[in-house]
Amino acid sequence: MTDFNSIISDYTAQVDAQLEAILPAASGPAEQLFAAMRYSVFNGGKRVRPALCFAAAEAVASSDSNTAKVAAAVEMIHAYSLIHDDLPAMDDDDLRRGKPTCHIQFGEATAILAGDGLQSLAFQQLTQLSDIPAQTVVELIGLLSGLGGCNGMVTGQAIDLAATGTALDLQQLKTMHAHKTGALIEASVLMGALATAQVNPQQLAALKQFATAIGLAFQIQDDILDVESSTEMLGKQQGSDITNQKSTYTSILGLEEARSEAAALYQQSMQALDIFADKADSLRGIADFIVKRNH
Amino acid sequence: MTDFNSIISDYTAQVDAQLEAILPAASGPAEQLFAAMRYSVFNGGKRVRPALCFAAAEAVASSDSNTAKVAAAVEMIHAYSLIHDDLPAMDDDDLRRGKPTCHIQFGEATAILAGDGLQSLAFQQLTQLSDIPAQTVVELIGLLSGLGGCNGMVTGQAIDLAATGTALDLQQLKTMHAHKTGALIEASVLMGALATAQVNPQQLAALKQFATAIGLAFQIQDDILDVESSTEMLGKQQGSDITNQKSTYTSILGLEEARSEAAALYQQSMQALDIFADKADSLRGIADFIVKRNH
Repeated sequence: MTDFNSIISDYTAQVDAQLEAILPAASGPAEQLFAAMRYSVFNGGKRVRPALCFAAAEAVASSDSNTAKVAAAVEMIHAYSLIHDDLPAMDDDDLRRGKPTCHIQFGEATAILAGDGLQSLAFQQLTQLSDIPAQTVVELIGLLSGLGGCNGMVTGQAIDLAATGTALDLQQLKTMHAHKTGALIEASVLMGALATAQVNPQQLAALKQFATAIGLAFQIQDDILDVESSTEMLGKQQGSDITNQKSTYTSILGLEEARSEAAALYQQSMQALDIFADKADSLRGIADFIVKRNH
Repeated sequence: MTDFNSIISDYTAQVDAQLEAILPAASGPAEQLFAAMRYSVFNGGKRVRPALCFAAAEAVASSDSNTAKVAAAVEMIHAYSLIHDDLPAMDDDDLRRGKPTCHIQFGEATAILAGDGLQSLAFQQLTQLSDIPAQTVVELIGLLSGLGGCNGMVTGQAIDLAATGTALDLQQLKTMHAHKTGALIEASVLMGALATAQVNPQQLAALKQFATAIGLAFQIQDDILDVESSTEMLGKQQGSDITNQKSTYTSILGLEEARSEAAALYQQSMQALDIFADKADSLRGIADFIVKRNH
């Protein structure tokens, strides 16, 4: 199995170069907007979703400049969602990765606009793919707008919001996270594969299985870390979900059962990758990282 | 010249039916999100941008179900921008068209998400056009993501934000409005024409000239109305731009010169339509409405 760190550093360099190219320079009369967009995109994020794009592309064919563009698009959607999620009216977080959140650094109005601008720029990025059928581009935009919007992430945020202060059962919690976190992880994997224009339906189905399992494992691990980690390591306040009275996998299942569930989902994700043989080694490395990370 | 009211009622019926079809039903665990999206889209707006889509399609060929989808997409971008613009951190408006703004009605967090969801749904809508080349769909998405985002509307909002409390000169004010209001009006006109898949470059250039002139006239008329209108007619507080110390066309030019400027732009917009002969009568009717409306 390929080591995650060596995989991710190459992918990160490629997606960061693409993000640098697509993000407007922080100058002119809207300088603060563009500075806020850049601040939030280049905030030391782990680039897990871009890595999934690259690794999925390599599982079915190979990654190329289109993979970097798709990865940049997904990361911009992720970055916008974090900016808006951190706002006072939402989670009201002052710190992310140990640094001031966008609205603390640039003010709330600019943060709202930075999120809006990143969302539109993500779709604009997808219109700039080259040497693949336009129909594939339309499918990619359909996936990101659905899974990153009302068929996915935004709906997940709304379910989360409606659920704050109320107790969810396990199924309701899974539904929320399948939307809130899982949908964009699924989009990352499927879009990386689709952008090669060489994926077949059997491969797409296997990748979807992989993404569903690892997306859920990702969230369970987040909940475990929220309980376990110190403020120093996580860069946000320890146990903030407990403070906010949110239902989590650890609050419903307990810490040990949550760990078992994450391990079982990891096994499921591995099985889904069997059809790709060693071409899926990068995906395996990322899955390994997701379940074993400590931050 | 065709009467605006008869034009608009037909266009409004078509775009409203399309919006009804694409907006998720207000039910399920994210009910509040979907209710807020619907509330903001169906708020009695004038549907000027959708009307421009239809009229531009008819200037070059004819309108069809794709026109309604393009119009719905543009209107969802417009609606999302109003939701976010009304937020306490932005313009802090409690009323729009005499009704509570989205965040007053549904809370600030849901309003932020409703805006986010409307933006992604707009792009999803554009992936659902039928019987036109996929390359045209990609061009349409490129237009809306650019002019509705960092090459247009969002940048305009940021310039506006940076300018609040400072005095702009006429050129700076025009730059701001060309982005903030003009860009989406240009998108509406160009997208309506492009979605017919029958527009030629000369026609696109003329439509762009028309849109630039009428977009600026629209904003000048807004500024005139802000000074002239009563709270009752406008549905928001009279002279709110003055209260917020924003530079406006009326504050820079004075009321009379602002009126002359709007009239001159109206004439420019008419000249740009000459090449379409009577096929542009609907566009002429809309331009007429924009410059002569009193609300």
